[in-house]
Amino acid sequence: MRHDGRANDELRPIAFQRDFTDATPGSVLVSFGRTRVLCTVSINDDVPRWMRGNGTGWVTAEYAMLPGSGTDRVQREAKKGKQKGRTLEIERLIGRSLRAVTDMKALGEREVTVDCDVLQADGGTRTASICGAWVALHDAFDTLIARGELGTNPLVEGCAAISVGIIDDEARLDLPYEEDSRAEVDMNVVMTGGGSFVEVQGTAEGEPFDRGQLDQLLAVAEKGIGEILELQSATVAEPRLT
Amino acid sequence: MRHDGRANDELRPIAFQRDFTDATPGSVLVSFGRTRVLCTVSINDDVPRWMRGNGTGWVTAEYAMLPGSGTDRVQREAKKGKQKGRTLEIERLIGRSLRAVTDMKALGEREVTVDCDVLQADGGTRTASICGAWVALHDAFDTLIARGELGTNPLVEGCAAISVGIIDDEARLDLPYEEDSRAEVDMNVVMTGGGSFVEVQGTAEGEPFDRGQLDQLLAVAEKGIGEILELQSATVAEPRLT
Amino acid sequence: MRHDGRANDELRPIAFQRDFTDATPGSVLVSFGRTRVLCTVSINDDVPRWMRGNGTGWVTAEYAMLPGSGTDRVQREAKKGKQKGRTLEIERLIGRSLRAVTDMKALGEREVTVDCDVLQADGGTRTASICGAWVALHDAFDTLIARGELGTNPLVEGCAAISVGIIDDEARLDLPYEEDSRAEVDMNVVMTGGGSFVEVQGTAEGEPFDRGQLDQLLAVAEKGIGEILELQSATVAEPRLT
Amino acid sequence: MRHDGRANDELRPIAFQRDFTDATPGSVLVSFGRTRVLCTVSINDDVPRWMRGNGTGWVTAEYAMLPGSGTDRVQREAKKGKQKGRTLEIERLIGRSLRAVTDMKALGEREVTVDCDVLQADGGTRTASICGAWVALHDAFDTLIARGELGTNPLVEGCAAISVGIIDDEARLDLPYEEDSRAEVDMNVVMTGGGSFVEVQGTAEGEPFDRGQLDQLLAVAEKGIGEILELQSATVAEPRLT
Amino acid sequence: MRHDGRANDELRPIAFQRDFTDATPGSVLVSFGRTRVLCTVSINDDVPRWMRGNGTGWVTAEYAMLPGSGTDRVQREAKKGKQKGRTLEIERLIGRSLRAVTDMKALGEREVTVDCDVLQADGGTRTASICGAWVALHDAFDTLIARGELGTNPLVEGCAAISVGIIDDEARLDLPYEEDSRAEVDMNVVMTGGGSFVEVQGTAEGEPFDRGQLDQLLAVAEKGIGEILELQSATVAEPRLT
Amino acid sequence: MRHDGRANDELRPIAFQRDFTDATPGSVLVSFGRTRVLCTVSINDDVPRWMRGNGTGWVTAEYAMLPGSGTDRVQREAKKGKQKGRTLEIERLIGRSLRAVTDMKALGEREVTVDCDVLQADGGTRTASICGAWVALHDAFDTLIARGELGTNPLVEGCAAISVGIIDDEARLDLPYEEDSRAEVDMNVVMTGGGSFVEVQGTAEGEPFDRGQLDQLLAVAEKGIGEILELQSATVAEPRLT
Repeated sequence: MRHDGRANDELRPIAFQRDFTDATPGSVLVSFGRTRVLCTVSINDDVPRWMRGNGTGWVTAEYAMLPGSGTDRVQREAKKGKQKGRTLEIERLIGRSLRAVTDMKALGEREVTVDCDVLQADGGTRTASICGAWVALHDAFDTLIARGELGTNPLVEGCAAISVGIIDDEARLDLPYEEDSRAEVDMNVVMTGGGSFVEVQGTAEGEPFDRGQLDQLLAVAEKGIGEILELQSATVAEPRLT
Repeated sequence: MRHDGRANDELRPIAFQRDFTDATPGSVLVSFGRTRVLCTVSINDDVPRWMRGNGTGWVTAEYAMLPGSGTDRVQREAKKGKQKGRTLEIERLIGRSLRAVTDMKALGEREVTVDCDVLQADGGTRTASICGAWVALHDAFDTLIARGELGTNPLVEGCAAISVGIIDDEARLDLPYEEDSRAEVDMNVVMTGGGSFVEVQGTAEGEPFDRGQLDQLLAVAEKGIGEILELQSATVAEPRLT
Repeated sequence: MRHDGRANDELRPIAFQRDFTDATPGSVLVSFGRTRVLCTVSINDDVPRWMRGNGTGWVTAEYAMLPGSGTDRVQREAKKGKQKGRTLEIERLIGRSLRAVTDMKALGEREVTVDCDVLQADGGTRTASICGAWVALHDAFDTLIARGELGTNPLVEGCAAISVGIIDDEARLDLPYEEDSRAEVDMNVVMTGGGSFVEVQGTAEGEPFDRGQLDQLLAVAEKGIGEILELQSATVAEPRLT
Repeated sequence: MRHDGRANDELRPIAFQRDFTDATPGSVLVSFGRTRVLCTVSINDDVPRWMRGNGTGWVTAEYAMLPGSGTDRVQREAKKGKQKGRTLEIERLIGRSLRAVTDMKALGEREVTVDCDVLQADGGTRTASICGAWVALHDAFDTLIARGELGTNPLVEGCAAISVGIIDDEARLDLPYEEDSRAEVDMNVVMTGGGSFVEVQGTAEGEPFDRGQLDQLLAVAEKGIGEILELQSATVAEPRLT
Repeated sequence: MRHDGRANDELRPIAFQRDFTDATPGSVLVSFGRTRVLCTVSINDDVPRWMRGNGTGWVTAEYAMLPGSGTDRVQREAKKGKQKGRTLEIERLIGRSLRAVTDMKALGEREVTVDCDVLQADGGTRTASICGAWVALHDAFDTLIARGELGTNPLVEGCAAISVGIIDDEARLDLPYEEDSRAEVDMNVVMTGGGSFVEVQGTAEGEPFDRGQLDQLLAVAEKGIGEILELQSATVAEPRLT
Repeated sequence: MRHDGRANDELRPIAFQRDFTDATPGSVLVSFGRTRVLCTVSINDDVPRWMRGNGTGWVTAEYAMLPGSGTDRVQREAKKGKQKGRTLEIERLIGRSLRAVTDMKALGEREVTVDCDVLQADGGTRTASICGAWVALHDAFDTLIARGELGTNPLVEGCAAISVGIIDDEARLDLPYEEDSRAEVDMNVVMTGGGSFVEVQGTAEGEPFDRGQLDQLLAVAEKGIGEILELQSATVAEPRLT
């Protein structure tokens, strides 16, 4: 039995609060249990010089943890003057995941930046970021369509992610910090709406894992991602309030 | 008439959402109209080496604008590797303001960091930060008192701040971005609950200002700060939900 | 009685040594008592790309303390790799003050940098910098006029600054380090030749201050600035030796 | 047929040149085809302050590409002043992999740094680094045993890594740059001598991949890693020449 | 008698391993005894904007010590975020030396970067770098000639360098670390094939040196450099294997 | 004939203005013609942790050009966030030169920093810095002796430096910028009061130089340094005014 009462293959309560802020065309406050990430989408109607004339755009992501997002204060990277390896790794992962489901031709010569700022951290911040970013991106593109600036939504498929891990010899879904910190194996999986993998990143934190464990983890992840994808679809199908 | 229908000496709607996040002992999402700042308080039960043995603590503040807080994306300072002069200036202002109303002996050997992260920016982010930070600090100290770690709340007085400015030759209170960007004079005032000044910072953005204008600005600021102080008192007098 | 024998509203001996160096069109070594700042003006007959075609120029300031300017050696910021918040704040203040009295159209498409390097620090370095910078700027513009590169001096008014403070419950003018370090309130005031304010920055270092104290400080500052403005006028009226 | 004539599940020629340099206790120049990485092991008979008294050590890795390792010169990160996200990600991967097979108790209070400097880059530099680093680490520990400083080799198992990918719809082993740059899916796999996984990192560069493709990739990787592990064992079983 | 059995005016064994790597048009692994430096030459068929249209090129050098090149691990400068003064000084020396024997008109509008990465350090790394860089540069230019991109080799003369020093009151040639670290005087000399000096840098590490000692050092250096120049000529006269 | 009318072996007018500032125990404004450098000496009655207990001290130097020291404004290194290679090279040269004539035992456990800030640059700033720094250091040590903190002056000998060069085929002494910028050979020489060399750094900027030219340069330098050493001795023999 998990400390929060969930079954091994059960997700935490998930919510997508759309248009949480209003300065950008897409803004979603996503929560997976106590983990909360604000995802905002800024769109620059221009691309860097080296991309001009291709007729295609680009999507990147940036990520940060707010200093007060954890019980132990997280040092502000701007103060230190450089970003940690972990941060850059997560930014690259989110960016790759979103690009995998974006049609760059349909986007046109635009530079899209998705900012994922963790307001509260309780495990799974990178996977929550991907899930929230997809919804924010969908909303942002819809805003442009509504403004007549874009013809069709460049997101060609859904995209969701979840963390899974082996704790006490059991494959578990959607790890909060308490489980993440003592997992023997920790895996992040990103999948498309069509059921294909975008990323599979499994790491033995303690004991190496065998093929059977890998299969169990993938099965649990696949189940969880399926549920998230449905939630995302239902969310963007709702009309926006603003 | 102001574009949002307010009288010249009228504040925007103000709200303090306490315990917005739960990782730190104090956390307040403050809003002044569309401006929204998340203020969290981290307390380190220790002080830097050079302060040890004094029996006194210290309070500092850090400040950042989230990239998606503005219509034009704000570049992440961690990415650039250094903080802007404006950011450091605001951090110093918030820190000084809070220290002015904190009894460092009563705090004891603790290092307090108040993080003010702007989720949405529509003018007055530094003054909103000070107002929200005071409530967050009050809550954080109360949390420590409830845990038996602190005897009495080290905040000896209220502390609030507001921006005022001269627009179209009129002294106006609590400037949103639209007014701030075309103000001839811009002033930030920080006052204590006892009605004294902690900071007065007036700047001629366009035309220099005379003594009469200075007096008008101070009068308007004093009125607005009085109202904010009452709101803060009422807020911390309410029981917390968590 | 002040430790240097001055009356409360008396300035320290002030001197403007013009053309102290000769590589730049304007160069002034200003002293307020033991505080000595070298102000040099570099003019670039060009503006950054984004300003081209406007027909207007820009004035910025940079500031630094030489390592040997204080009894405790001041760490070289170039060695540390970043400038302190205090430095950036002072640079912004000097720049704003000079811009307030410069006609950018008359300046034309030129980028002006005023460097204020503190050779010896005994309080009031930022206000001395502003006073010296104004004279150096005046000389620099006159040099360009003499060379036939500029038609009229773009400085439309005088500009001077002074620090005032409350020490032992008395408002005092032009604080040396000894007073500055124990002032309860510290205020920097920048005014134009026409008697208007450009900046008013008052900070309670210890006790907050009331309206009566604020008025006293402004009165003392106004008196001192008036005297400095006369000195500046007299200085630039003298022929230059070189 | 692959452009270098290999079968899909065939490794490039692999060589471990031991004691390539002699300043450190372990030094291996590993080559996978044209990819060549110099792995050196530095051992500090001390650990950082916060680890003292635990009786355990730590292993980290650093990675860099020499500027001349590629046809397009690789910018020196020291010149730019910061390491790229890719570099930090690789350093973290190598370090985790080596720690997974090291007994930190047997290592004792020592800080081990494995430097992987890429002399020539033709794909698979991170996996070659792991393979070479394991041999260098084994040699370094043997050196300490020979000097009587260590009782037993803290490497409890073999550790090897390989890149696999899907190119033209086929799962291929050990991708050179030409294949890596046009792979639809790119996967790095790290395994122990005992046949368990330490890391599985699969990324869809173009099309997302399905479960069948994932299984194929893992099968090909497993085969290749088995061969590398044998080569590593054979290598360290040989006497060293120096 | 020297600890390695050499006469005072005898060089260590020198070797130039050409085409050690193959990604760049020139690549030489040079060794002076245990000191080994990899010199690679990257050529950019373009020059920075400010040089365009001159019809001339430029040659610069970069230098680094690999972390495992010494018994005490050398901290990676990319990790620290800045290069040491010693590094920059060496880069400037190598660049100046190579430019002294390069005909920039014959080179044409190309930017050449010579990277000198020290794989193993045992004294004399900067002089070995110059010697190896000259051979690598010669090979690189020959590669371009063979490709029909360049008409004639822009290296107009040979260029070699050596360190000399006074140890135990004797002038010695080509100091290994053991001698370098206890030399009273340390001198680096760079000469052209025509027997002229490009650089003479003598430093008293302990006792200052007189004119007689200076003359002795120059005589010993001149002899050694003569031998190296012959070796370089013989090397580039050999056909390349690739 | 030189453009300033000097003979080839004639120095520019030299002046040492002692106690130019008063915050540090030694402060000298040295001028060589239009070149002017402020040299201040800060003494820390402590040494870094790793030197404690040796009973010896250390002397280092720092160097900077003020932005307004040249006709083309010199970019502030603190603004850019790093020091140039040239700056670090000069700092190292000044430090080595001063250490060569300082008795570290007599100095005791003190850390001495000599700051050389160039107020006006017209060639020879590094050699002027060394000459001025020696006088400032002598004064600083005398100040400590006068305070009873030091028994004897740790400067065991004089130390002076000069630049020489070959211009229009003639060896010339003490090059101003006009000559320095078109010198074929540029040499900096540092010597002790006893007539020995501390540093000899000769660089062919254009044509390489032969032994005869080297000898001429050394002869001219020796003559000039002899004169400077006398001036320094005469200077420190005078009583100080403060």
